[in-house]
Amino acid sequence: MHRSPLQERRDLALGPGAELFYDDPVEIVRGEGCYIFDRSGRRYLDLYNNVPCVGHGNRAVAEAMATQQATLNVHSRYLHEGIVAYAERLCALHHDGIESVVFCCTGTEANEVALAMARAVTGQAGIVCSDAAYHGNAGLVAGLTEVGSDTQGPAGVVRGFPYPDCYRPLEPGASDDELCAAYLARVEAAIARLKRDGHGLAAFIVCSIFANEGLPRVPAGFLAAATELVHREGGLVIGDEVQCGFGRTGYWWGYEAMAFTPDIVVMGKPMGNGLPLAAAASTRENVAAFRRQTDYFNTFASTPLQAAVGMTVLDEIERLALVVNAASTGGYLLEALGSRLAGVAGVGDIRGCGLFLAVEIVRDLSSGEPDPAAARDLANRFRAAGILLGAAGVHGNVLKLRPPLVFGRDDVPALLEACDTVFGIRGER
Amino acid sequence: MHRSPLQERRDLALGPGAELFYDDPVEIVRGEGCYIFDRSGRRYLDLYNNVPCVGHGNRAVAEAMATQQATLNVHSRYLHEGIVAYAERLCALHHDGIESVVFCCTGTEANEVALAMARAVTGQAGIVCSDAAYHGNAGLVAGLTEVGSDTQGPAGVVRGFPYPDCYRPLEPGASDDELCAAYLARVEAAIARLKRDGHGLAAFIVCSIFANEGLPRVPAGFLAAATELVHREGGLVIGDEVQCGFGRTGYWWGYEAMAFTPDIVVMGKPMGNGLPLAAAASTRENVAAFRRQTDYFNTFASTPLQAAVGMTVLDEIERLALVVNAASTGGYLLEALGSRLAGVAGVGDIRGCGLFLAVEIVRDLSSGEPDPAAARDLANRFRAAGILLGAAGVHGNVLKLRPPLVFGRDDVPALLEACDTVFGIRGER
Repeated sequence: MHRSPLQERRDLALGPGAELFYDDPVEIVRGEGCYIFDRSGRRYLDLYNNVPCVGHGNRAVAEAMATQQATLNVHSRYLHEGIVAYAERLCALHHDGIESVVFCCTGTEANEVALAMARAVTGQAGIVCSDAAYHGNAGLVAGLTEVGSDTQGPAGVVRGFPYPDCYRPLEPGASDDELCAAYLARVEAAIARLKRDGHGLAAFIVCSIFANEGLPRVPAGFLAAATELVHREGGLVIGDEVQCGFGRTGYWWGYEAMAFTPDIVVMGKPMGNGLPLAAAASTRENVAAFRRQTDYFNTFASTPLQAAVGMTVLDEIERLALVVNAASTGGYLLEALGSRLAGVAGVGDIRGCGLFLAVEIVRDLSSGEPDPAAARDLANRFRAAGILLGAAGVHGNVLKLRPPLVFGRDDVPALLEACDTVFGIRGER
Repeated sequence: MHRSPLQERRDLALGPGAELFYDDPVEIVRGEGCYIFDRSGRRYLDLYNNVPCVGHGNRAVAEAMATQQATLNVHSRYLHEGIVAYAERLCALHHDGIESVVFCCTGTEANEVALAMARAVTGQAGIVCSDAAYHGNAGLVAGLTEVGSDTQGPAGVVRGFPYPDCYRPLEPGASDDELCAAYLARVEAAIARLKRDGHGLAAFIVCSIFANEGLPRVPAGFLAAATELVHREGGLVIGDEVQCGFGRTGYWWGYEAMAFTPDIVVMGKPMGNGLPLAAAASTRENVAAFRRQTDYFNTFASTPLQAAVGMTVLDEIERLALVVNAASTGGYLLEALGSRLAGVAGVGDIRGCGLFLAVEIVRDLSSGEPDPAAARDLANRFRAAGILLGAAGVHGNVLKLRPPLVFGRDDVPALLEACDTVFGIRGER
């Protein structure tokens, strides 16, 4: 593949190995709503980016950013109305157990805070997560990345359980209830091993919709039952809402879509429409325990800038009715994709909630064997057809559709046409 | 002390224990240049904040931020001219060994990247830092915080050496050369212990001006000699420029002021004038080794927004000639403070470089015993007199003067008058 002069310069400036999407990377210059434009002016429908949730180039956010930056932007050890009001508004969007907020810049930082908080509250060290989790790129949370089932993480305090999945279930042929019990038994076993080894249980941490795992269909009631189990065992439940929060699922929070109530919620990505902004929130008591133990301070977090931008993102989500849009447009898209791709070779499953959909690409329908090469190939073909999406999931075989929340019904036909082209070309081979 | 309604709300919204400066916290609403205004309209001279380096409320930065955010702000796995050009410009401001950049959001993240890079390059795990270091609030770098001399950090891979200090020297009465040798011997011993315990040496990490330690006068040649030693032992030198970079010292980089050449430089705080923006930079080869080992990706870093804002901060530093200003105004201020506070009870030492000055508060001049209570008291009195500064250093007894770099000679008289009031009041007791 031809490498552009910019790509050559990038290799030196950022060091070789800085990831680029697609065999033929897109050079982007502008974004608007759920569209991205390349240098030649070509328009792409963005089905990948969840961060610009209220739209690429959203004017209200840009203006709030500029106004606050021109007025005041400084660290949090002075009193400032903005950040207090923003924290209050965020908490009011959650269940009653969410009263106090620790602001951070990235999801990694916020998950790190959540784990430290669970440890401060419980006095225990052990962590249970799924065997295909991703909660961040550094520190303790990086140790959670695909830790594997039943194995040990760093310092032996992290134990994985097999992520719940009705498509490739732990026990083929089992009923939903039986499956739920089977996965719960594995969580229970992970907790028992932590306790046997003297680590105790601090936290059970999950992405509320298991996004990194590939957005599996989860046996009904699993997360509510896991929450009960974790509480019985003395631990706290952390709902990582970095990918699924702020309306993505058609509910404000992924844990509402999945019907459970986490003790600590972690927010990030879409929270600032691109401004680094993340948070961990819980009861006043839990946050106080964390602050007592750590004296946590973050130069760029809890600032007037974060508050002004975060507030405006909430305003825009409400003004544009994006939670409802995610539910209705997401449902419409799921149905439309379902009928368009019914019977298409290689399409094993289509699922998701709100504006977060997954198309499972497999070698053949009977085995359900993942086909990551085909998924990568499809992503490249979609890019050529003017649609930006990615392949994800633990096997890398799941096409992930996760557009800005301003994606509407009018944007669906272009995607369906591209499906014809992309899957059609593939069918003719 | 009376607690305001806002303070009460803050206690719940952010959880009790979120730090506030001063016994009577300042409620801020606006900033301009090196001034901050409270809700009543009262103006404070800001001698604390290094983040808004090109001035509170800098218009050019706010405009660049808004323009880019309204145009495009998205993650780094597409090609984008902005971030490449910004990385190139940053590298050109450093010595030849700085060729490639890994962008992050916070100094913590960038120091974490630097340590991982040193480990990837050397294949070793051990880290040497000062016994009063602060390099961040999470993960491995949090384990460097005041690790103590000769002790073990997390997993035993971190060893401290006593930070170099001519005011409270390791060997009282020693010459500069003897002191330098004494501190070097302690670094050598730390390295030897790491190797004896099988950890090897990955990195020697220092804030180039030992800011957290209290901005000590360092024996001449110490850091150059330490660099030679570390290289001989197979390790890399990390210059943490988060506090001292971007002109603060009257040089572009603190390592220039301190006459040594780090292998990896870490940048942060003032880099985005308040936008979360940080970086670790080194040779192409070192960055490549890091990326190979980690596949590092950071959602909010390496973005068009970071690039546009970072570029504008560099533009403003150059347009306003702030590096020269830091040198000349800083020198002028140091001299003025020196004569104003000469012979004042409790003032043990006045030192610093550029616009980063330290006033050492002691119980009496002969013992030099640190007096943190008096320093805190002075900071509160300065706040009452309309000057914002803080007490810092390993003993908490050092008044830290670190204004936005737009601080000029015209701002000096107000500070000197406040000194009369603050120290005078104290003298009358």
